Amino acid sequence: MKKNDMKLWIVGSIGIDDIKTRTEDRKDLLGGSLPFCTAAASFFTQAGAVGIVGSDFPESFAARWGKFGTDLSGVQHAAGKTFRWAGAYDENMIERETLKTELGVFADFKPKLPAAYKQAPFVLLGNIQPELQMHVLRQAKGAKFVALDTMNLWIDIAKPALVKVIKKVDLLTVNDGEARMLSGKWNMRECADELLKMGPSYVIIKRGEHGAILFSKKGIFVAPAFPVEKVVDPTGAGDSYAGTFMGYLAKRGRVSEKALREALLYASVVASFGVEGFSLECFEKLTIAKIERRMKQMRKMISV
Amino acid sequence: MKKNDMKLWIVGSIGIDDIKTRTEDRKDLLGGSLPFCTAAASFFTQAGAVGIVGSDFPESFAARWGKFGTDLSGVQHAAGKTFRWAGAYDENMIERETLKTELGVFADFKPKLPAAYKQAPFVLLGNIQPELQMHVLRQAKGAKFVALDTMNLWIDIAKPALVKVIKKVDLLTVNDGEARMLSGKWNMRECADELLKMGPSYVIIKRGEHGAILFSKKGIFVAPAFPVEKVVDPTGAGDSYAGTFMGYLAKRGRVSEKALREALLYASVVASFGVEGFSLECFEKLTIAKIERRMKQMRKMISV
Repeated sequence: MKKNDMKLWIVGSIGIDDIKTRTEDRKDLLGGSLPFCTAAASFFTQAGAVGIVGSDFPESFAARWGKFGTDLSGVQHAAGKTFRWAGAYDENMIERETLKTELGVFADFKPKLPAAYKQAPFVLLGNIQPELQMHVLRQAKGAKFVALDTMNLWIDIAKPALVKVIKKVDLLTVNDGEARMLSGKWNMRECADELLKMGPSYVIIKRGEHGAILFSKKGIFVAPAFPVEKVVDPTGAGDSYAGTFMGYLAKRGRVSEKALREALLYASVVASFGVEGFSLECFEKLTIAKIERRMKQMRKMISV
Repeated sequence: MKKNDMKLWIVGSIGIDDIKTRTEDRKDLLGGSLPFCTAAASFFTQAGAVGIVGSDFPESFAARWGKFGTDLSGVQHAAGKTFRWAGAYDENMIERETLKTELGVFADFKPKLPAAYKQAPFVLLGNIQPELQMHVLRQAKGAKFVALDTMNLWIDIAKPALVKVIKKVDLLTVNDGEARMLSGKWNMRECADELLKMGPSYVIIKRGEHGAILFSKKGIFVAPAFPVEKVVDPTGAGDSYAGTFMGYLAKRGRVSEKALREALLYASVVASFGVEGFSLECFEKLTIAKIERRMKQMRKMISV
């Protein structure tokens, strides 16, 4: 594929994770939002990755990541340490405690869009500082459909900048707590109404193991999570969700209500595979045939 | 309608509630599981109520309740006080604190099935002591499809009796915490598998504002809750859910996978009306036309 054919790029964090679960203790895993987003998207379209790593970033990580067809030319290499995160999950595999956050080179990240990405129509602004989301979005002349993910931290410390960039995007994705913080409302429908007033045409409220709800002027779509039999590591599930969602839309090429709904179901399915292993391990064994098989189950689960 | 035509009876608690929410403080409301269950069922079929009240039970309550067409001949009147419950909701309208529980005559409740109920094919054993559920079920010679609701208390203090009655029923309904307690598993699919092994053909795991999941040998159905714009009082939502569910099945007359799925959607819809007011207030204004209108929205919310 020529780089000019790239339909989607994603900006986000790249990290090295240590993760503890009830039964396992794994160190030095490829993590951060960007690997999950791009690997998940890869089942539908090649994605360009915009991020930063330090000089300690293992070549083996880049090799594994590259196997998903992800274009890594937007990944900057800086002197210093790669972003590191360590966390421990509760036995329910939902609550987690952050044990360590070391920003490293991520602290001075200034995303620069490769020329080949500038005409890409689909953009996923992963969860980074809102000023940087705006900075990189300004370089995206060809962007037609922009999605933005964020987190409570930015709502807390950078709300004006966040509100400014939200105004520019087509789709906002937040979890229920963030929706409440950002809108000042409690009820999810009221939250979504407020968030839609801020600019985006679409708001997705993520509810973890309960799925997500898509709100737009056209109505509401309730997308369940795919009920997974064994959760090994939920890290990155939200990122896989967003990556799949955007990858699927990029493949379809146009955004309709139907395409959005299908995209959400695919997102649930791909994310459900992702949590069945650490890091990208399950995606490495995943095929589109397996995805389609689970999609068929998913459709049965929601049809009357 | 002749009483012998009765298709559904329900056993449960009848109470007088005091309820505090963030904005309101209401006293002496008709409460308990049975009024909610039977009123919700009434939009589909007449239900017989099996319960107990004390000599302080206001006649006006019986009059309001009777307006739903509920047959109250199975309600015993005993000397003493009616069951009383008081609770206060958190501002999220989900968490609640019990401020008072006075069992009153409910402590000595020994349900007796009116002769006219004995041939009814549909039975909902509401959340009461498992020994009493078994006691009343034994009187139900004509029962064809029996659903059982329970709570953490009985799993804690009366598990053997509960397991015994669960073996006799067709459908078990529990929330996710109860499913975990009862099955000893964590993952919802594993929980459901264990619960199905205990006897019932169907297990419904209720997830409050996230809806419910129906598990059976035939598969999984994920039913979302209807997103309500304004929750006034969530008390009784689970009871309205179960009552609607059984009322709808009783109306259809036979239980198929499709009927069960439809029943769950109707249950979400009727329960969503119920929480828009205190006690049975919203049901008093509810019509089948309003239910069908919201059902139409519901179907749109889950179709791709």
